[in-house]
Amino acid sequence: MGERSTEILYGSNVTIGEHVIIEPGVVIGNDVTIGNLVVIKQGTNIGNGVQIGDLCVLGKRPASNPKMSQKPPVDLPPLMIGDRVKIGCSVVIYCGVNLSEDVFVGDMASIRERVSIGSSSIIGRNVIVEPKTEIGSRVTVQTSSYITSDMVIEDHVFIGPCCSTSNDKYMGLGNYPHQGPMIRRHARIGNNATLLPGITIGEQAVVGAGAVVTKDVPPGVTVAGNPGKPIKSTQ
Amino acid sequence: MGERSTEILYGSNVTIGEHVIIEPGVVIGNDVTIGNLVVIKQGTNIGNGVQIGDLCVLGKRPASNPKMSQKPPVDLPPLMIGDRVKIGCSVVIYCGVNLSEDVFVGDMASIRERVSIGSSSIIGRNVIVEPKTEIGSRVTVQTSSYITSDMVIEDHVFIGPCCSTSNDKYMGLGNYPHQGPMIRRHARIGNNATLLPGITIGEQAVVGAGAVVTKDVPPGVTVAGNPGKPIKSTQ
Amino acid sequence: MGERSTEILYGSNVTIGEHVIIEPGVVIGNDVTIGNLVVIKQGTNIGNGVQIGDLCVLGKRPASNPKMSQKPPVDLPPLMIGDRVKIGCSVVIYCGVNLSEDVFVGDMASIRERVSIGSSSIIGRNVIVEPKTEIGSRVTVQTSSYITSDMVIEDHVFIGPCCSTSNDKYMGLGNYPHQGPMIRRHARIGNNATLLPGITIGEQAVVGAGAVVTKDVPPGVTVAGNPGKPIKSTQ
Repeated sequence: MGERSTEILYGSNVTIGEHVIIEPGVVIGNDVTIGNLVVIKQGTNIGNGVQIGDLCVLGKRPASNPKMSQKPPVDLPPLMIGDRVKIGCSVVIYCGVNLSEDVFVGDMASIRERVSIGSSSIIGRNVIVEPKTEIGSRVTVQTSSYITSDMVIEDHVFIGPCCSTSNDKYMGLGNYPHQGPMIRRHARIGNNATLLPGITIGEQAVVGAGAVVTKDVPPGVTVAGNPGKPIKSTQ
Repeated sequence: MGERSTEILYGSNVTIGEHVIIEPGVVIGNDVTIGNLVVIKQGTNIGNGVQIGDLCVLGKRPASNPKMSQKPPVDLPPLMIGDRVKIGCSVVIYCGVNLSEDVFVGDMASIRERVSIGSSSIIGRNVIVEPKTEIGSRVTVQTSSYITSDMVIEDHVFIGPCCSTSNDKYMGLGNYPHQGPMIRRHARIGNNATLLPGITIGEQAVVGAGAVVTKDVPPGVTVAGNPGKPIKSTQ
Repeated sequence: MGERSTEILYGSNVTIGEHVIIEPGVVIGNDVTIGNLVVIKQGTNIGNGVQIGDLCVLGKRPASNPKMSQKPPVDLPPLMIGDRVKIGCSVVIYCGVNLSEDVFVGDMASIRERVSIGSSSIIGRNVIVEPKTEIGSRVTVQTSSYITSDMVIEDHVFIGPCCSTSNDKYMGLGNYPHQGPMIRRHARIGNNATLLPGITIGEQAVVGAGAVVTKDVPPGVTVAGNPGKPIKSTQ
């Protein structure tokens, strides 16, 4: 990554709250508002018109302990925050994340490293996103949902509140490859649904509230129940 | 709302921690304790005997992005915090909220605008409450539960941990009216239950842990399962 | 507990961020890193090689309101943080907690009083642990799971993301004894599972994702569904 800049670059019309800590190499665009008591880590890149709430940590580096099988990567690109992104209060976002323009991140959400989020998508309050996941454009992930790692969420997907996903079929046993669910375009997931590792939710498929989805859902099909079974299809 | 005061009014015996940001027009009663690293936004009204933990944001204004169908209201009344309310650490509460006397708000909880909470109610840790919801008196909402918008929770209701509610039958499709569940007096909801939009849980009804409630539950009836079915009745 | 020290003791090679509040009687070991905007309450004891993220509250005392049947204990021992523990950002940990060496606590997690956690265990992001619970060594509790009070989790247990537990059979009615689940060695719990009060999950048992466990699971048995039923056994 070459030498890191130690300067901080400020655009015009930047408003910064009280007790804000900005580390070296941060780049801030024009017309940016940053709240109070915010920590912006080394190299974070903030676009034009971005709004950041109070008490956030932006650009955090991952850590690990002896029990974790995967060690965090040592060299990650900086956090990139696109134009007009809005970030709530008490948000924690890691380095190696890319937020496209007009993304909205609610209060108390957290996004780990190596995640990209497409334009105008909404990451609700208290949503947690794990590493190495791709989220498309105009996606909604509602409050308190959990997005596991190694997952793909295509454009226009709607995920209701409190949904849960997983990527580890063997639940911590051994060193198997992990694979989160794939959710295809325009699929919709009801609140508190449970998605198992590696399944695909097809285009325009619907998962009912509280459903436990243990296998693939074909395009246009609606599933409900535990385990989730088809209850209707548009195709 | 007339002209906004730019003065801050302090009662007697007020204790304020370090690095606290108090905006103009805030009114603080007597015998109030405010933790460290707290942000209190413009016009917030804090009653007598209130205790506020560290790292809170009180009186936040709502924001939005281009994908959101509902734009936040521009003029909201200030956050009103009643006498003897206790607020934990890392809490985010919006303006336009009314907390009655003796309410308890746990750490990491968040409450959006246009919500009222009756006296002595408990909002547990990590609970998220959405806009335009009414919560009665002596209600318990336990840890990590999610209270959607346009919902009514009457007095003496008990909601266990990790419950999920929703208000949007069409999951983000189009501009239909939203309606959260109605939970009547003395009803009790088990942990990780899922409540669908617009249903009514009757007086003294019981929802079993993990139940997925897809239709109204009559008064005094207990439901369990996915979908939830009656398993017993007191009437 | 005798007289409380009012001095702060610092080891060698301690790095402390900006705007950190350290109360009297705190003891800090060698080679400790503390982030920015952190509050460390009276008497907290921090071992050698500990890393603490930004915006944490460590050693908080419990509070209560008139509706709560149990009042918090008045005299609790200080928070003890073992050697090489790593704590993320925006974490809230109470006094009366003991974290053994090499424990990892993710961002936005919170741990109440009278909890002990064995060595090398992982408490994921946004996990909430209630009072009076014992967690063994090399346990994993993944993101956004909820660990109730009066619960025992033995060594090597794996709890997936978004799991929910409860300890109150009568859901807030009257003054009955509370009892959380007991999870025995090497058991594994799938994501978004629901565990009812007082049940035991046997050694090496497996609870499927989204299962609602209403009674004991024998050792080595796998349960799934709502209510959870055995689907296979290794014994």
